[in-house]
Amino acid sequence: MNVGDRHYRTIWLSDDGRSVEIIDQRWLPHDFRIEKIGSVAGIATAIRDMWVRGAPLIGVTAAYGVAMQMADDPSDAALDTVWETLHETRPTAINLRWALDEMRRFLRPLPTEQRAAAAYRRAGEIADEDVELNRAIGENGLAIIKAIAARKQKGEPVNILTHCNAGWLATVDYGTATAPIYLATEAGIPVHVYVDETRPRNQGAQLTAWEMAGHGVPHTLIVDNAGGHLMQRGEIDMVIVGTDRTTADGDVCNKIGTYLKALAAADNDVPFYVALPSPTIDWTVHDGLAEIPIEQRSADEVSLVWGKTAAGEIAQVRISPETTPAANPAFDVTPARLVTGLITERGVAKASREGLKAMFPERA
Amino acid sequence: MNVGDRHYRTIWLSDDGRSVEIIDQRWLPHDFRIEKIGSVAGIATAIRDMWVRGAPLIGVTAAYGVAMQMADDPSDAALDTVWETLHETRPTAINLRWALDEMRRFLRPLPTEQRAAAAYRRAGEIADEDVELNRAIGENGLAIIKAIAARKQKGEPVNILTHCNAGWLATVDYGTATAPIYLATEAGIPVHVYVDETRPRNQGAQLTAWEMAGHGVPHTLIVDNAGGHLMQRGEIDMVIVGTDRTTADGDVCNKIGTYLKALAAADNDVPFYVALPSPTIDWTVHDGLAEIPIEQRSADEVSLVWGKTAAGEIAQVRISPETTPAANPAFDVTPARLVTGLITERGVAKASREGLKAMFPERA
Repeated sequence: MNVGDRHYRTIWLSDDGRSVEIIDQRWLPHDFRIEKIGSVAGIATAIRDMWVRGAPLIGVTAAYGVAMQMADDPSDAALDTVWETLHETRPTAINLRWALDEMRRFLRPLPTEQRAAAAYRRAGEIADEDVELNRAIGENGLAIIKAIAARKQKGEPVNILTHCNAGWLATVDYGTATAPIYLATEAGIPVHVYVDETRPRNQGAQLTAWEMAGHGVPHTLIVDNAGGHLMQRGEIDMVIVGTDRTTADGDVCNKIGTYLKALAAADNDVPFYVALPSPTIDWTVHDGLAEIPIEQRSADEVSLVWGKTAAGEIAQVRISPETTPAANPAFDVTPARLVTGLITERGVAKASREGLKAMFPERA
Repeated sequence: MNVGDRHYRTIWLSDDGRSVEIIDQRWLPHDFRIEKIGSVAGIATAIRDMWVRGAPLIGVTAAYGVAMQMADDPSDAALDTVWETLHETRPTAINLRWALDEMRRFLRPLPTEQRAAAAYRRAGEIADEDVELNRAIGENGLAIIKAIAARKQKGEPVNILTHCNAGWLATVDYGTATAPIYLATEAGIPVHVYVDETRPRNQGAQLTAWEMAGHGVPHTLIVDNAGGHLMQRGEIDMVIVGTDRTTADGDVCNKIGTYLKALAAADNDVPFYVALPSPTIDWTVHDGLAEIPIEQRSADEVSLVWGKTAAGEIAQVRISPETTPAANPAFDVTPARLVTGLITERGVAKASREGLKAMFPERA
C-alpha cells in the first residue's frame, strides 16, 4: 500500500534481478528503512531477527532465499541445505515451512540449469498469489462495509475497530483484516479506523497506525481497554481482526485480547468479523479452547516497553518494579458463537462447521 | 500496609506535631521517597502535582493543609482562604471538597485559639475514619474470599484479578479493592493476585504491583488483554475492582477497561465484585451509561509511556507515529447486570436499586 505518495509492497525483487528489497520493520514506526538482501545468510537474518514478520511475508521471503541459493548452487544438496537453513530461522512458522516445501517440490524435477530462473519466477508467483488472496478477502469484506455505509448518513464514516496488525506489513500487500479497509478507501467510501495499541508488543500502535497514516486512512489510536466503552457509546460500526489459526468449527485463535473485543461486540450488537485466507483454517482442530495450546512469551514483553525517547533514541523503559513477575500468554481463543462471519477469499462464511463446509466443500 | 518489613500509611503526622509526611507517589515503583510537608503551599503542590492521588488520600491531605493554616493564622479569613487555595488544586475531586467543607464546618464555631489543635485532631480522625471504612470493606470482602478458599484444595491460592489501583496508595491504608486481599493474607488464606497493568497510565503495573510486592502478596503482572483468556482457562476465581462512582441502580463507573473484564467474568461464571465506600454511591444518578459523562484525557497518555531506562533514568517513550491521533476516554461504565456484588462497609449489596436500598435504607 502507500507510504505517503508512493506505493510499496513489503518485499520486491531488486533491479539487479537477484536481490530483494524489504521494509525493515524493526524500526517502524519511527524510521522507514529499506534493506537490500542478496544472500541466503541475509534472508535468514531478516526472518530470524524479524526484519520481516507476518506469516505470508515470511513465506515469500524464504522463497526468495531459496532462489538466491539456486543462483549460487542449484544442486539437490544445496536445495536441501537451504531448506534446513531457512526452516530453522522460525521453526514454528507454518507458512515458512509451506513455502520451503513448495519451492523444493517445484524445483526438484527441473534440470539444475533451469532452477535459478524458475525459482525466482515461482517466488514472484507466491508473492503475487498472496496479493491476490488478500485482495479477494478485501472484496468480500468491502461488501460488508458498503452495506453498513448505505445505512449511514452520506459522508459519515464507517467506524471500524481492529486489533493487532493484520495489515499489509504482515503480508506482501493489502493485509487480511486491513484489505477491506484499503479497498473501501479506494472505492471512496469514508472509513475511520480505531487502532487498538495491542499490548504487549504494541503492533497496533507501531504498525497498524503507521500503515493507516501512510495510506491516508483516517484513524485514531486507543488503548486496548477503550474498545468496549466505544462500542457501548455506538462509536464502532464493525470489528475486523485477523487470525493466526481458525478451527474447522470456526473458533478463532488470534492475538491476546481479541476475545475481550468479541465479547464487547456481542454485548453491543456490533458485528465482529475475522478476515482470513483459507490456509489459516486448521481442519484438524475443532474446539479451539480445548485443543489449541497458547504460547507463553517472555515476561520482558510485558515489563518493558519500546519506543522513541524525547532525544530521538529507540529505547525501552521498565514500567513495573524490577522484581514483579509477569505472565504473557500471546494468543486467546474467540469462540465461534461470538464471530459474526469469517471473511475468506471465497466469501463470508458463517463461523461454524456447517458454514465452513459450505464454503470449502472439498475440505469437509 | 507494609513496604518490606515496615508498616506505612500514605500520610502521617510528623514527630514535630505540625508537618505531615507522605509517600511521594510520583516516583513509584522505581523510587520510594518520603517527603515532609509543613506548609499550605507544600500541601497544595503535593495535591496538584499528584505526589498524592486517590480520592480519600487527597481529602485527608487537604484536611492537614487546613490544620497547618490554623497553626499559622486561625482567623475566619484564613479559613476561607485555605479552603479556596486547596480547592483549586483539584477542583473536580469530590472528596477534596468534602474534606475542606468538613474542616470549615467543624472549625468555624470554635474560638480561634482552639482551632489549630482541633484541626489537627479532626484531620487525624478523618484519616482514621478512612482506615476503618476500608477495613470494614476488607472484612466483608474477606468473607467472600474465605468461601472460595473453602471450595479449593488446602493450600491452593485463591486467584484474584484486579484492575487499576484501588489500593492502599489511593487511601490512607488498606485500599478498597485491595482491603479484602490484605485481610486474607493477614488471616493466612493463600491468595494470588493477577494485576492488570491498566493502560494508559499503568497504575496496575506501577502501583498495585508495588503494593503487592511491598506487602509480600504473591502476584503476577499481566497486560489488560490477558484477563479474558485467563478466565477462559479457569485461572481466575474472582475479580475485585474499585470504582470512582456507582449509581443508585448499581452501575459502576471505573477505570477504562473494567467493563471488558466484567464481560469476560460473566461469560466464564467468574464472580465480579466492586469494593466501595458508600460515599462513592451517587444516589442522584440511576443509569450510568446514559447519565455519567466520561472524562476524555490527553492523547499523550496513550502515545507516551513512562518508565525506567536501562540507565536508571525515569523517562517516557513514544510508542506510535508522531502524527497519530489518539483518543483517551478515562473511565467506562459496567452495567449492574454484570456485577455479582458491591462490597461496602456495611456488607455485600446486590448491584441493583433494591439491593442498595436494602443496605442503605436511610438513602432510599
